[in-house]
Amino acid sequence: MLYLVGLGLADEKDVTVRGLEIIKKAERVYLESYTAVLLVDKEVLESFYGRSVTIADREMVESASDDILADADKVDVAFLVVGDPYGATTHTDLVLRARELSIPTRSIPNASILTSIGTTGLQLYNFGQTVSMVFFLDNWKPASFYDRVAENARIGLHTLVLLDIKVKEQSLENMARGRKIYEPPRYMTVAQCAAQMLEVEEEIKMEGVYGRESLAVGVARVGSENEKIVAGTLEELCDADLGAPLHSLVLLGRRTHDLERDFLLEFAVDKEKFKSVWARDYEGKQ
Amino acid sequence: MLYLVGLGLADEKDVTVRGLEIIKKAERVYLESYTAVLLVDKEVLESFYGRSVTIADREMVESASDDILADADKVDVAFLVVGDPYGATTHTDLVLRARELSIPTRSIPNASILTSIGTTGLQLYNFGQTVSMVFFLDNWKPASFYDRVAENARIGLHTLVLLDIKVKEQSLENMARGRKIYEPPRYMTVAQCAAQMLEVEEEIKMEGVYGRESLAVGVARVGSENEKIVAGTLEELCDADLGAPLHSLVLLGRRTHDLERDFLLEFAVDKEKFKSVWARDYEGKQ
Repeated sequence: MLYLVGLGLADEKDVTVRGLEIIKKAERVYLESYTAVLLVDKEVLESFYGRSVTIADREMVESASDDILADADKVDVAFLVVGDPYGATTHTDLVLRARELSIPTRSIPNASILTSIGTTGLQLYNFGQTVSMVFFLDNWKPASFYDRVAENARIGLHTLVLLDIKVKEQSLENMARGRKIYEPPRYMTVAQCAAQMLEVEEEIKMEGVYGRESLAVGVARVGSENEKIVAGTLEELCDADLGAPLHSLVLLGRRTHDLERDFLLEFAVDKEKFKSVWARDYEGKQ
Repeated sequence: MLYLVGLGLADEKDVTVRGLEIIKKAERVYLESYTAVLLVDKEVLESFYGRSVTIADREMVESASDDILADADKVDVAFLVVGDPYGATTHTDLVLRARELSIPTRSIPNASILTSIGTTGLQLYNFGQTVSMVFFLDNWKPASFYDRVAENARIGLHTLVLLDIKVKEQSLENMARGRKIYEPPRYMTVAQCAAQMLEVEEEIKMEGVYGRESLAVGVARVGSENEKIVAGTLEELCDADLGAPLHSLVLLGRRTHDLERDFLLEFAVDKEKFKSVWARDYEGKQ
């Protein structure tokens, strides 16, 4: 059996009791390490599980999935995924590959940022489609997220923006020379995301889907003891420092509930500003 | 401290290791029992936790929250929620009430149907807003879900439909006479949901947002060992029998990915029909 085991969001204790049982019994244990990361190192997991864990990077999962699936029709293999197992397309792919090999599969669900974002007090039924924000380069500023945000905004919905992580990336020079030297990991911050969003609105798309005074919420380390939430205008969030990764951002839609305002106010950069923008642009809107 | 502890979706082992630690140590433990239910009884939970659990029904949470919060500034109180703690508005309300009383709060995230629906192979970034379907009465057929579905459909997105559960409901007669006699619990099935959706399209709204040949996916007992998935047209799903609760339904948007088709095909009521409807109405659409 191939088990896809969700690990949740923060640390080793966010695995479920069932997930932990499966990990302890499996013949081999892989940790998918490129779509999201926990806030603890592999060694902490290994010591908690009482066994060794093989890191599965993008190359391994996408090109060497047969190694992961070897003998999984006879023995149990656990493939660990940060968050919920079905958060990323690549895992669906792995299950399809297993099916072709007549390997039974089972997924063990866990928390995902897509629902844990409810910790902000924003109501989950007020969210539209989720988008991703990648690190811009000087000559590559993909703005496809903007059209999705616009679709959500038109019908008044919030947008959860998932922020890029770069793990095991090569510099262009090292890649060109075939040197397997990797850059230090990088994690996009709420401030970087807010700045990129404004750059796209003001210099590339200019359709007025949002602006400097649009309200947004930044979160960091959701589900952990030092979870942090900051609410404010996109302009304010450009200067917000939420500390260590992982970060996410929500751009508010105008279809809001008073409970959302009451809950968010505690996290506002500037409470008076937050209240006045809310009253002007969000309150009672559909 | 008030802990909101997510229990996940299926049974007692879906709690996280951290959640279980908190439950074992808390002074009092409440189980919210009206927005969702686990597939096991309270007694199974109590035996697994090694302690007693107080059922918190809607009346208790909404009208007697002070009892739940009593002394929570000095002792730990665990409030258990099936799925993720922030799935329902009512929990946000409880946290706001705790804040007013200067009681610190922390939530322990867990799996929610909003992301575990990924077990169908449908990509989570292709979902729009989530809607709820309630049991229709002869003279009360709320169709507000339809407008939300229409908003999602217009931009090509899938809609997750959460199905009504009726727990601890009184008959009108018993309510009128003030008799605290409760009806047996009722859980909406995928078939009932599909039939109500067609009724609203064909007799009430008639805007052609979807129809008998629209593709949908029914799921039951997601995350459990006997999870069941059925894919087909809404008409086919009117006759689908997915067994015991809880059920949910996804109405497909036209913005699809080939991987979604490949993954769903295994669950199709009629594979040839599924493939032909897909090719005609979904493939390559935006």
